[in-house]
Amino acid sequence: MRFTHFIFLATSLLLPMKSYSQDIPLTLEDLIPGGKTYYKYRAEMPRQLTWYGENLVYAKGDSLMIAPYTDKEKPKVLLTLADINNSIQIDQSQKPGSLNRVQFVSPQSHLLRIVSGGSIYLYDMVTKTVKAEYKSLEKAENRDWAEGTDYMAYTKDNNLYIQDGKGKEIAVTNESNKGVVSGQTVHRNEFGIDKGTFWSPQGDLLAFYKMDETMVTDYPLVDISARVARLKDIKYPMAGMKSHHVTIGIYNPVTNNTVFLNTGTPKEKYLTNVTWSPDGKSVYIAELNRGQDTCVLKSYNAASGKLEATLFTETHKKYVEPEHGAIFLKSDPSKFLWFSKRDGFNHLYLYDVSGKLIRQITSGSWDVLSVLGFDEKGENLFYLSAEASPIEKHIYKLDLKTGKKIQLSKEEGMHSAMLSASGRYISDVYNSQYNAGKAAITDTKTNKTHIFHSAKDPFRNTKLPEITLGSIKTDDGKTDLYYRLVKPLNFDPNKKYPVVVYVYGGPHSQMVNNSWMAQTRGWEIYMAEKGYIAFSLDNRGTSNRGFDFENITHRQLGVVETKDQMSGVAYLKSLPYVDADRIGVHGWSFGGFMTMNLMLRHSDVFKVGVAGGPVTDWKYYEIMYGERYMDSPQENPEGYKETSMVNRASDLKGRLLIIHGDEDPTVVMQHSLQFIKSAIGKGTHPDFFVYPGHGHNMIGRDRVHLHEHITRYFDDFLK
Amino acid sequence: MRFTHFIFLATSLLLPMKSYSQDIPLTLEDLIPGGKTYYKYRAEMPRQLTWYGENLVYAKGDSLMIAPYTDKEKPKVLLTLADINNSIQIDQSQKPGSLNRVQFVSPQSHLLRIVSGGSIYLYDMVTKTVKAEYKSLEKAENRDWAEGTDYMAYTKDNNLYIQDGKGKEIAVTNESNKGVVSGQTVHRNEFGIDKGTFWSPQGDLLAFYKMDETMVTDYPLVDISARVARLKDIKYPMAGMKSHHVTIGIYNPVTNNTVFLNTGTPKEKYLTNVTWSPDGKSVYIAELNRGQDTCVLKSYNAASGKLEATLFTETHKKYVEPEHGAIFLKSDPSKFLWFSKRDGFNHLYLYDVSGKLIRQITSGSWDVLSVLGFDEKGENLFYLSAEASPIEKHIYKLDLKTGKKIQLSKEEGMHSAMLSASGRYISDVYNSQYNAGKAAITDTKTNKTHIFHSAKDPFRNTKLPEITLGSIKTDDGKTDLYYRLVKPLNFDPNKKYPVVVYVYGGPHSQMVNNSWMAQTRGWEIYMAEKGYIAFSLDNRGTSNRGFDFENITHRQLGVVETKDQMSGVAYLKSLPYVDADRIGVHGWSFGGFMTMNLMLRHSDVFKVGVAGGPVTDWKYYEIMYGERYMDSPQENPEGYKETSMVNRASDLKGRLLIIHGDEDPTVVMQHSLQFIKSAIGKGTHPDFFVYPGHGHNMIGRDRVHLHEHITRYFDDFLK
Repeated sequence: MRFTHFIFLATSLLLPMKSYSQDIPLTLEDLIPGGKTYYKYRAEMPRQLTWYGENLVYAKGDSLMIAPYTDKEKPKVLLTLADINNSIQIDQSQKPGSLNRVQFVSPQSHLLRIVSGGSIYLYDMVTKTVKAEYKSLEKAENRDWAEGTDYMAYTKDNNLYIQDGKGKEIAVTNESNKGVVSGQTVHRNEFGIDKGTFWSPQGDLLAFYKMDETMVTDYPLVDISARVARLKDIKYPMAGMKSHHVTIGIYNPVTNNTVFLNTGTPKEKYLTNVTWSPDGKSVYIAELNRGQDTCVLKSYNAASGKLEATLFTETHKKYVEPEHGAIFLKSDPSKFLWFSKRDGFNHLYLYDVSGKLIRQITSGSWDVLSVLGFDEKGENLFYLSAEASPIEKHIYKLDLKTGKKIQLSKEEGMHSAMLSASGRYISDVYNSQYNAGKAAITDTKTNKTHIFHSAKDPFRNTKLPEITLGSIKTDDGKTDLYYRLVKPLNFDPNKKYPVVVYVYGGPHSQMVNNSWMAQTRGWEIYMAEKGYIAFSLDNRGTSNRGFDFENITHRQLGVVETKDQMSGVAYLKSLPYVDADRIGVHGWSFGGFMTMNLMLRHSDVFKVGVAGGPVTDWKYYEIMYGERYMDSPQENPEGYKETSMVNRASDLKGRLLIIHGDEDPTVVMQHSLQFIKSAIGKGTHPDFFVYPGHGHNMIGRDRVHLHEHITRYFDDFLK
Repeated sequence: MRFTHFIFLATSLLLPMKSYSQDIPLTLEDLIPGGKTYYKYRAEMPRQLTWYGENLVYAKGDSLMIAPYTDKEKPKVLLTLADINNSIQIDQSQKPGSLNRVQFVSPQSHLLRIVSGGSIYLYDMVTKTVKAEYKSLEKAENRDWAEGTDYMAYTKDNNLYIQDGKGKEIAVTNESNKGVVSGQTVHRNEFGIDKGTFWSPQGDLLAFYKMDETMVTDYPLVDISARVARLKDIKYPMAGMKSHHVTIGIYNPVTNNTVFLNTGTPKEKYLTNVTWSPDGKSVYIAELNRGQDTCVLKSYNAASGKLEATLFTETHKKYVEPEHGAIFLKSDPSKFLWFSKRDGFNHLYLYDVSGKLIRQITSGSWDVLSVLGFDEKGENLFYLSAEASPIEKHIYKLDLKTGKKIQLSKEEGMHSAMLSASGRYISDVYNSQYNAGKAAITDTKTNKTHIFHSAKDPFRNTKLPEITLGSIKTDDGKTDLYYRLVKPLNFDPNKKYPVVVYVYGGPHSQMVNNSWMAQTRGWEIYMAEKGYIAFSLDNRGTSNRGFDFENITHRQLGVVETKDQMSGVAYLKSLPYVDADRIGVHGWSFGGFMTMNLMLRHSDVFKVGVAGGPVTDWKYYEIMYGERYMDSPQENPEGYKETSMVNRASDLKGRLLIIHGDEDPTVVMQHSLQFIKSAIGKGTHPDFFVYPGHGHNMIGRDRVHLHEHITRYFDDFLK
């Protein structure tokens, strides 16, 4: 399961002469998700935004609205909840009470999904009829709809089922051993995997993951909420230990037969980026060896399961991490685009289905972030990249024939986008440090953009601390590192302030960028209100800066990251208003690990730290993520030793509060307990707090408590 | 499993003009068991003291010494380790390297047990021969030797075995179901039960407990010391839930047959105080109902298992707690003594084997604490009681015919005693507040006592804080409550000092008494050195003060106890040198529960608390102890609600640190976690610390760390 860490937005915008009528100071209830008044400080953006044909649709109250294309138009009502409820032929009690229960099926379809209790109805907006009905879904998880047919796949417990729109359940698998799981995500959500079922483009065949984890050790979690605590075993494969075995089945609902792809041995490998060929006859798999240094793209015959072709092999002495499947050209399904970091940045390469490289499509010292699709005739490719700035994300149009590239997104910031049914229009939703959020439509023929929604600054009545984005250099002077600095409210340059460094620093993250309020977390605002400076820096190892920037941490997680954070600290110390004797640090997950690195490797610098859900020794972490970045403990004993916080427990000098959820299935609480055990043996004194019943992150109301608790610790020992 | 709490000795004795050459201040290493220099501050007393015939024997270096009876004699050498090793006919490698491996079998016997690795030898001191040998005992637990024969019983896993001195193992039970346990203690060590095997006086029959706990819920403990945490299920029956079923088998080694006593139904009851009749033909059982308000003494035929007699029934509207078996008269085995609290104090009653009460033997407003035995002819009974003072323990001789009673122990303090083989002599080992320890022999004919050892004050070179013993009245003015007050080192009556109250307060405890240094714990000395006042008080509910003093807490544990502790606080506040704004409290187990009662019921009084291994809600505690004092949750819902700290989490105002061992099998860590979960929900902020791998108490080196940790918390928030 991939590390997740909460990044929550809040804001700056310290305009002179602004008058603030209320909301000072903001509380944790205002600033932390789960807080009672948190909703008041979120920018208002169109809800349920989606394309319906060439119409960009969103929900507003009980109406589905069509966004205008030009200044001259107004939003139009497509349909209301009442329209649906008046015409839909289902039992009164099943009719949706809100548009939250209504989903568009796809831009190409006239169908809406109406979710009502354990049933789902497919409602045709044009004919105003119910086209299909799915029943008894109360326990159904991982619901996945086919396009082109009415099939829906879903899982219950460890088995996979389908319904065909007549409400009858058909079992695809019938496995009594709970250690064999079908239709769910595998490989702990690494390699871009976030689901376990894949309908063919025609919707007539269902590819699905089958994971045998019977050979993986049971890991005992304990749920103390019952009167007598209850065991909740999970399968948790640790680095260097036995991993699960994954295969891919192709189920044919007509014949009720399943064929398994002949992926062979070794059984311990990663079957990633399952992709159907456009004709629905082949399945492409990026197969990665357990060592994660060799990725082979293969295609299999969906009918026979036989290997059709081994297209190409990609290796890297550190690691290969395929995260995107083949993207077949709209204009020529015998060619596809492939993401690769082989030249040091994430770029697109054009291949034919024989595996022959035709040419590199994008290049430069920047990463392509994702592909949106093609225009009507497939002549132009649309994608998002970090080309304009490593801390921004923009929309590009690339002429596949000429190579001519146009930046479609005009304003600065972080853009996200979706294509209309035909590919002619692009929705553009974006924000930046001083822009709380805008929504626009871009016509890819004219490249013109019409903004149809601009969110008001939710903090317009609030005096906020000043937020600065900036960059420093790594210690070798070669690389830019971006930071965010939040000054205390009512900042006085002649005073000396304590600092809290908020750190994450792990792969697949970027905390500092030009998004709304520079992605400042609510807690940073809160600390700034209380008189702390909040500082964050994205060290090497993080995202959107190219592969070499990321993989420098290989086999030594935390070492270079810590060096870079110390460059940030050196910068802080150069500021006349920073009190160098009162520097603290806080982070969660990988950021908890980083907090401990900083507290233990630089025990004279950091006075106080709060490490949440920290990795303390990579040998307790899971195989996929762990072995990618650290190799196995057998292959890299020095690296594991060097990066073990458990081994450094004797170096603790300052005050370190460790926090863990006792049911954390991602970074198991054993990490914290092992560190504490080591510290007890060495005679040092970390502090500890536990959130019973919580997993890797504290969510809901308890998240407010968490931040009160963290804040109190800094107030106790750093203020 | 009975609550255990560590009470460790240290000292006072602030004599004027004493010159101190060293050892100031004492460290936790000096004062806490497990500390590197703790041994330096223990009074030196005779090791392995035991009677051998009429000789009181002890180990000194490599010699077994005989203590002198008079001033004129000197200690004599009985035997040396070399004597044993030179004459014993066993393999060189098996010979003991120290007298720690040598044990006397009984005062009546010439035999020594020589423990060597997995073997034990019975060595005859007179004939200098090895009389028996027991082998392959590496995994043998609960070893129990017969008298009169060479049989030894022991358990491995859940089964019971014997050996007859020829080294051959015979299985008494052969049970594959791990939930059925034979030969071990049952009923979680309540009711005076501390073992599971009972040899007949002739050593030819073995009574043993068989406990079926298959119906008791598994409770999941997790051992995180392994690379992949490991589940360690225990059977933990919680109040009001299903309890285990106990039966008693009588095994005959000659026939290899087992007969079970016909104890019948209901199966959920307590079979306590297993006692053989002197002729080895009957077994007496004090059978207590699950409700613990009715105790029936029954005798069973050891050969047939049939009920022979129902001697008498004792009931009490609160509870009956039998803790001593029948004590048959030496002079007349048809009569026996029986302990009962029926008149409000623990006294001895004489019965005949038909169950007829002959007469009450002792009476008065004081408790008999234990019976030592009889003199040579069985005319005089020896026992320990609290008659002289509720905070002292003395040895008494009672003429069974005339009722004439003599106090044999002369000096004040806490005496412990053993009878010689004949019963003529009594060893008397005692200490008191200003006496670090003396060892003496009393001739029960002349009632004269010869002190043969006086320990030096181990703190003679150390300046110690002043310790005062005293008493106050309960709030109704009727009852004395004893307290101990330790003043800060270099006490200045004109200053105001912070206070830490150390509390236990649960049944079966007495923290304040006239023992060495008044039982002041090392940590209290340490805190006094740091400038705190340390205060402890034995509230109602504790021991040695009679049954009514104890059982006033019934169905409402913590309520009266807290009231009494607040009487102590009122007294503290009356002292001019107490800073009433800086009162803290610390306790463990029941004392952790009390700490939370004080912090939450009197949140304006206590600023800081440290609760170790606390019960936070009696519904998570076990059946035997829990239902005795609280009845079941079904019977006493208001009581459980009133005494639940979990329900009071919102009342937390001060700083409360909760500490728990994550493998605590007595008060499971769920108690702390449930409180924390409740506090999180209510928005209050306890602190927490965990000792990984520890049970109900932190032992060994980690105990020093624990007290550093506790101290730091008071230094952080109370100093």
